[in-house]
Amino acid sequence: MTYCVGISLEQGLVFVSDSRTNAGVDHIATFRKLHVFGVPGERIIVLQTAGNLATSQSVISLLQQRLNGEGVNLNNVPSLYQATTLVSETMREVMARDGNGVMMQGVDLSCSFIVGGQVNGEAAGLFNIYPQGNFIAATEDTPYFQIGESKYGKPVLDRSLDNSSSLQHALLTALISFDSTIRSNLSVGMPLDVLVYNANSLQVPNGFRVTQDDPYYQGIRQQWGEALQRTLLELPPAPGQYLG
Amino acid sequence: MTYCVGISLEQGLVFVSDSRTNAGVDHIATFRKLHVFGVPGERIIVLQTAGNLATSQSVISLLQQRLNGEGVNLNNVPSLYQATTLVSETMREVMARDGNGVMMQGVDLSCSFIVGGQVNGEAAGLFNIYPQGNFIAATEDTPYFQIGESKYGKPVLDRSLDNSSSLQHALLTALISFDSTIRSNLSVGMPLDVLVYNANSLQVPNGFRVTQDDPYYQGIRQQWGEALQRTLLELPPAPGQYLG
Repeated sequence: MTYCVGISLEQGLVFVSDSRTNAGVDHIATFRKLHVFGVPGERIIVLQTAGNLATSQSVISLLQQRLNGEGVNLNNVPSLYQATTLVSETMREVMARDGNGVMMQGVDLSCSFIVGGQVNGEAAGLFNIYPQGNFIAATEDTPYFQIGESKYGKPVLDRSLDNSSSLQHALLTALISFDSTIRSNLSVGMPLDVLVYNANSLQVPNGFRVTQDDPYYQGIRQQWGEALQRTLLELPPAPGQYLG
Repeated sequence: MTYCVGISLEQGLVFVSDSRTNAGVDHIATFRKLHVFGVPGERIIVLQTAGNLATSQSVISLLQQRLNGEGVNLNNVPSLYQATTLVSETMREVMARDGNGVMMQGVDLSCSFIVGGQVNGEAAGLFNIYPQGNFIAATEDTPYFQIGESKYGKPVLDRSLDNSSSLQHALLTALISFDSTIRSNLSVGMPLDVLVYNANSLQVPNGFRVTQDDPYYQGIRQQWGEALQRTLLELPPAPGQYLG
């Protein structure tokens, strides 16, 4: 499984992805699920992937190989909407190539993507591509998307994120959401890949890899856990009728 | 969907169930999913149900109807293990009766149960019956079971429950787990049914129904939400390399 979060805010975009893949509990590996395309000063396009690794890797490879070709590619599409369409078309191409019914033996080839970024001349944006290839855009009302193992880490995002949150607050909230997920589900694991984009900067940051022993991540995990314990202990006990 | 939690502690047992059922978003209703059997001073057996409502209701009805018969029933089985076996057998009986392949049109008839309680002469216990009818018992290492929509509310249980927790602390933690779930998933809804059993009391409490406007539940929801917000704001911001 996988867990990725992409967040769209007035101030910019925040992306966090885990890096664990598994095909059964005895076939676990680390693969990057956050991929950055872009031309500094002109565009940045960030992709996060969940689902079948063979499909998503092929999609990323084809998108990269075609950057230097003459056709439409992520370095020349005129909008983020069209970049998302291109990712979707590439996914359908790979699934059509690999999805031979006789050979697939019931294996699900599908995957999902989060596509976020900014192309010069338009606002930053964030899209979620479904396994069927259609997609939706984040809005002020729904400023984040999750793909993969999304349920464990959803409550903390629902409680504390909105479109006007700062990049720092959104990053922190996303990291806590990952901690909750990793504690409860073995199929999501460290290290995490993080990328923060400042709206309208048109910079292409490298992003940062958060390892298991990263002191900042360790610190906030511990402080968060202790604060939750303390809060639970401070809440008033239930009145008598609850115990009747 | 449904969400039920049963917790087994040194001090006793805690049960919390939601009451929303849905067959599609336009067919939502309220049904009790926490059912109490017992003979004061001699035994208490609590059942929580998730899954197909027609199946689980029939199982409860048959178990109730048979209490006054001559055969094996929940008022005369000699152990909680055998009570769990009886619930499982009754579930298989209902599924065999109703599960006509031609008629079912792909509808899933299965359900799951949490069975907890105490029969005089043995310790209190807690079992989880899978949709296949086999079951497992809670232990010191794994003191709680969830059935239904379990992922949203699992992190807070994992963080703060163990076998030596007090009944009050476990009840509070379970209520917070329900709040997180209800905020993130429309298929789980108020009111909640709560039952707390003191180990070795052999009392048969009626339990308590927590409504949407219950002042205690409202208060802890609000305090918990505010404490999480405050904690997130107090955590240190990510260092520069996270933002690179």
